[in-house]
Order: sequence, then structure tokens, then C-alpha cells
Amino acid sequence: MKPGEDPVTGIPQFGEGGRLVEDQRFYLEEVKLANRNRGMPLEGLRYDVTPTGMHYLLVHFDIPALDAEAWRLEIGGRVARPGLLTLADIRDLPAVTRTVTMECAGNGRALLNPRYLSQPWFAEAIGTAQWTGVPLHSVLDRAGIDDSACEVLFTGCDRGMQGGVLHDYQRSLTLTDALRDEVLLVYAMNGRPLEPQHGYPLRLLVPSWYGMTSVKWLARIEAIAKPFHGYQMDHAYRVRQSPDEPGDPVTRIRVRALMVPPGVPDWMTRIRLLTAGHVVIEGRAWAGEHRVDCVELSTDDGHTWERAKVEPAPEPFCWQSWSWPWAAVPGRYRLRVRATDSAGNRQPDESDWNYEGMANNECQAVEVIVT
Amino acid sequence: MKPGEDPVTGIPQFGEGGRLVEDQRFYLEEVKLANRNRGMPLEGLRYDVTPTGMHYLLVHFDIPALDAEAWRLEIGGRVARPGLLTLADIRDLPAVTRTVTMECAGNGRALLNPRYLSQPWFAEAIGTAQWTGVPLHSVLDRAGIDDSACEVLFTGCDRGMQGGVLHDYQRSLTLTDALRDEVLLVYAMNGRPLEPQHGYPLRLLVPSWYGMTSVKWLARIEAIAKPFHGYQMDHAYRVRQSPDEPGDPVTRIRVRALMVPPGVPDWMTRIRLLTAGHVVIEGRAWAGEHRVDCVELSTDDGHTWERAKVEPAPEPFCWQSWSWPWAAVPGRYRLRVRATDSAGNRQPDESDWNYEGMANNECQAVEVIVT
Repeated sequence: MKPGEDPVTGIPQFGEGGRLVEDQRFYLEEVKLANRNRGMPLEGLRYDVTPTGMHYLLVHFDIPALDAEAWRLEIGGRVARPGLLTLADIRDLPAVTRTVTMECAGNGRALLNPRYLSQPWFAEAIGTAQWTGVPLHSVLDRAGIDDSACEVLFTGCDRGMQGGVLHDYQRSLTLTDALRDEVLLVYAMNGRPLEPQHGYPLRLLVPSWYGMTSVKWLARIEAIAKPFHGYQMDHAYRVRQSPDEPGDPVTRIRVRALMVPPGVPDWMTRIRLLTAGHVVIEGRAWAGEHRVDCVELSTDDGHTWERAKVEPAPEPFCWQSWSWPWAAVPGRYRLRVRATDSAGNRQPDESDWNYEGMANNECQAVEVIVT
Repeated sequence: MKPGEDPVTGIPQFGEGGRLVEDQRFYLEEVKLANRNRGMPLEGLRYDVTPTGMHYLLVHFDIPALDAEAWRLEIGGRVARPGLLTLADIRDLPAVTRTVTMECAGNGRALLNPRYLSQPWFAEAIGTAQWTGVPLHSVLDRAGIDDSACEVLFTGCDRGMQGGVLHDYQRSLTLTDALRDEVLLVYAMNGRPLEPQHGYPLRLLVPSWYGMTSVKWLARIEAIAKPFHGYQMDHAYRVRQSPDEPGDPVTRIRVRALMVPPGVPDWMTRIRLLTAGHVVIEGRAWAGEHRVDCVELSTDDGHTWERAKVEPAPEPFCWQSWSWPWAAVPGRYRLRVRATDSAGNRQPDESDWNYEGMANNECQAVEVIVT
């Protein structure tokens, strides 16, 4: 056994207690994850609703192959009426559709130095979809939650090893958070049944929280009497400076703006080529539970800023459009954009570092050559 | 200007004449491409038809934002009746649906050493979709191709710089290849209008050829009197040993089998954990214009092979299912799979190297720990 290997399997350990990398070269394992997972190409910011196949996607283990006819959702734990629900049972309840922006908690991780070895996102782990389903509280109310319950535990059908621990993907919410009106059990995305990779046949959707909370491929929902301490709660998704400290849990999405890179790209570097003249720089901004109040653009790498026009959110928890007219004259630019939310939080020029690279929101930079 | 920079823009040049990398660490630019583009998670091999959002996708430049109402397809060059077609004009022609397996010509590139700096595919640049559209020949016949024409040139709405050359994405086919019955202009994928990233509103589909031929976001189709020598024909998509030689054009998909990795994964390394016992290893195999005649499995890293059961292709140009029962006993394995096509071509244990890493088909290896 070498250092950084799992004692039982000998699998190299890149997770908790694993390696951080000090440079800008990436490991094969990171690239394999980047190919498996899916970032939204940033020109996708043009769409109010992200086309399904462009929406970001992070899958920890494998996409389960589930048969919706045979599938059952188990409702259990501290409830008066435990049971098994079919998809038809859930579809029989009054449906709601919400347009919600979802972001991965590790978005921007690959910009931090040293970086944690995981899915190496730059800024593309984002998307907005129309999700259709039923409020979670309507299912929990029917089950009758016992007074002894303090949390709701969600278990997915996806299983694997992470940080040396073999486990089903599980996350919990406090009862207060779980019963919020916007929390849904969803079976459709953009007007069609969920595609397998997005949680078919049923997933959780927790608007304003980073995506790890919205457990896919739900198998079981349990009311529990003590806080849950599984791997994905206590070991992953923490904001901390080292693996030895407990840190704080990752929760709500922080404020961020992204622009559609203007002009046309160079294939490999994605540096932008733009013809001089008037151009409208546009994009989206979001802030979890808050509104976006202000978006600012800089054409001189953050030395000076100008205010963009920001549209109101079409509904809560959904990104907002913004635009800024630029009279581009020949030269080389590093465009930057930053947003400020209604609670006064502004994106930093450079993110504070944390061990897992979680919940960072450094403002985007786009290199543009105007000719 | 430093070596490897474009003389006009100063953009680092990773393309033709650019760097090859001798080791297994990857550049930031490669990882950004891996996040932008989309590999099919290999558990997607379970589906006869790949869910739209799991299908592989390679986009050279940006995904164009096109309005199907305003969009027109220009038919021109050496034809008797040039003109502009609306999407409705094309949808009015008799439609056909074909289930076709598509693969990127650079699939497997990242396994070669040294490797060409580009989208760093391992083996996931694959997918099978139901494509609906009209035979290209039905449109060309109506336009009346002149006897002087020898090729058909396809121009996409996507534009950018590659290898220092600013260009629209363009590829040509010989008249003989273009008029083949299976070559389609498609407007639907898996029963729905194309999503933007797959070529909305109309793309070319050339079954049995690597994906670069199936030009997306078509703007123009021209019959031309001399062979086309654009960047994507003469400079990219060549099998050659160095950038100084012309090499051979990349054309048809070569034989390949892939397995669904058995058991459950370790998150970061994707090493598989499997419980001892009987398990059915399954996957798909394809061979471009040929049939797959034989699929073989090895549990000892290619020293010995056993024959899998191979199903016939549901239709031409579509992958074939295969399965192989394994009585797995505890141990550590490097499973490999290889296919042989009806023309007698068999996948090599290790691919012959070429400069761009094109059309390689080294047999897949999956590490499995059985306990």
C-alpha cells in the first residue's frame, strides 16, 4: 500500500485526505470526469431555459438504469403512514412547474490554486430548466410526519465509493427546509419525462441550494429523529481549510454573473475574436435565495466597472438577464463581469480559497481580441 | 511573438504545427474543451437509443443561435435551379427515420502517447440516435446537379479560428458519397426537433462516417466542380505521422466494441467494485459500413479471449448489442473487449499512433476489483 491508496482496495485516493495540486496541469482522472459530466457551453446563457442536453450535469457514481413501472418510492421513518408510491401515485397529485436555475457547488473549482482533485469545473456548471412535479410537503403531509422528526433523508439509487467509503448517495434537509413550498419532487424537465441522467423517474429539486441537495433517482424518503451524518453531508460538500476540520456545510447558491463570450472563438484556447464596433454583451446572473440587484462589466480586467442593465427574474430562484452595450475599439481585453445581490453580497475578483473548492464565485474573465 | 503563437493575434497555437504532449498530465485548454463538449457516460451503452442529453457532442466553435423562421438553406453552385429553402419546404418532402451510431474521429485520442492537443477523448465520443429528415439526394435531384459537379460542399453557420485560420465550418463529399441513399438532411433527433447543440434547425447526417462529416447548422449546400481544400478537409481530420505530410483523409468509422463498466464505481478513478458471482458483461459494438461479426472478452488484460454473443444490427449503421456471462471470483482484473468486423478488421490491443490521434480503435480496458 502506497500513501494515498485505499487500504482495502488499493484504489488511489483523490478525495478526502487526498492530493491537492499546485499547478495548472490536470490529471487523467479529472479529464475522464470532465468528459463524463456535462458543462453548459457558455453560449447557452442565451436561452431563458437551457435545452435539456446543454444543462450542466454532475453524476457521482453511475446513472442507474431504472424501470419506471417497477420503481417505487419508499416513504418511511418517523411518519404515521409509511408506504410505497408508484410514479402514477405521484403524478396524480396536483402538479406545479417552476423555472429554476441550478448550479454545482464545485463550479469554478479549477480556478483555485491549489485545487482539490474532483470534477474540474471552470464556470460552466450551470443551467436553468422548467421542472414539473409535486411539492414535497404534499407527499410528507399525506404520510404524517411525527413530532419526533427533525430532518428528512433522501436516498438515491446511485451507489459507489468515494473517499474510501462505499455508500448510496444520500443527503438530508432539516424539516423546516424540506417543507418549504418551493421544494419539489420532479418527474419532468422542460416538458418531458426526466432523461435518465437527470434523475429518471423522480428526483428532488431544492431551489436556491447548490445541486448536490437535489438528489436524483430517488429510492427512499425518511423522516429521521437525529441529524444525518453520511459521507455527502459530513465529509463532502464542506467549506473548510483542511480535511482535518469539520468546516461549514455547503448550502445556498451564491451570487454569480456570467456573460456569453462575444465574437467567435479560437477552437483550442477559446480566446474570442471580435470586429470593432458596437456590440451588446449579454448574459445571466443569479443569487440563490436573493435577487440580483447589480451587474457590472469591466473591459480593463477589473480596474474600472460600468453598470449593466439587469432584468427582473421571471420567477423566484431563476436567473436574470442582463446586457451592456460596448463600443469595442481594436485592442486586447480581459472582460470581467460581477454581480451584487439584494443582500449586498458582491462577487470577489478572486475567490477565497477552500479545500474542496466549494461555493466559490470569483468573477468571470473572458479574453477578447478586437480587430 | 513566441514560438507556437499566431503571428497576428498572439493566440497560443495548439493545433496544426502545435505541441504534442509526452505525458499523462493535461492542459487547462484541454479540460475546458472536455467540459464544453460531451462524452456519453459508458453506462449509456445500455440504451438501444441514446437519450439526447447523453449523446456525445463535439462543437468546434460556438453553438449558433438560429431562428428557424428566419433561417434559409441555400442550394447553389453547379445546379440548374439554385434557391433558398425554408424548414417547411424540407419538412414537406417525404421523411425517413434512421437509427444511426455516430462517433467522433478523435475518440480515444487521449490514450495515445504523445497525444495531440485537442478535445481529450478517452472512449466516450459515441452515441446512437433516431434521426429524422429527408434524403439529401431528394433535395439535390430537385436542384438538378450539373454534369460539371464532382463534389458537394456543406457550410455550417458555425465560425471561428482553428490552426490560425478564421473560417466557417465546411466539409465536402464526393458526388457519389453525397448521393448515397442513407445520407440525410435531418431536423429531428429522437422524435423531437434538434436541440441547438445538435445542429438546429438542420444538419447533415452521413451514416458510417465519423461525425466531422455530418455538418451541423447547415447554411449552404453547393455542388462544386473541383475538390474542396478547406481547413477541415486538408489540415484537420487527416491520418498522418507529422503535420508536414498530407496524410490520408479520415472517412469511415472503424470497428469498436465498448462495455458497460460492471459493478459500481469509485468516484474519482472510476475503478469498478464488483461482488463475486455470476454477472453478465454487456455492451455495444459497431463498424461503420460493416457488420460486427465477433466480440471477444478478456479478463486477463488480453492474454486470453472468449467469445461474446453478438446480436444482429437492428438496421444498417447502427450499433449491435453483445453480452458475455462472467463467473467473477475475487481478484483484481483488467477486462478488455475487442470486436472484429465483417471485412476481417479487428481492434488492436494498442492503436497505431498518428499525429492527430484520428480513427484509432484500441480495445477498451476496464479495471475491476471483485470481492
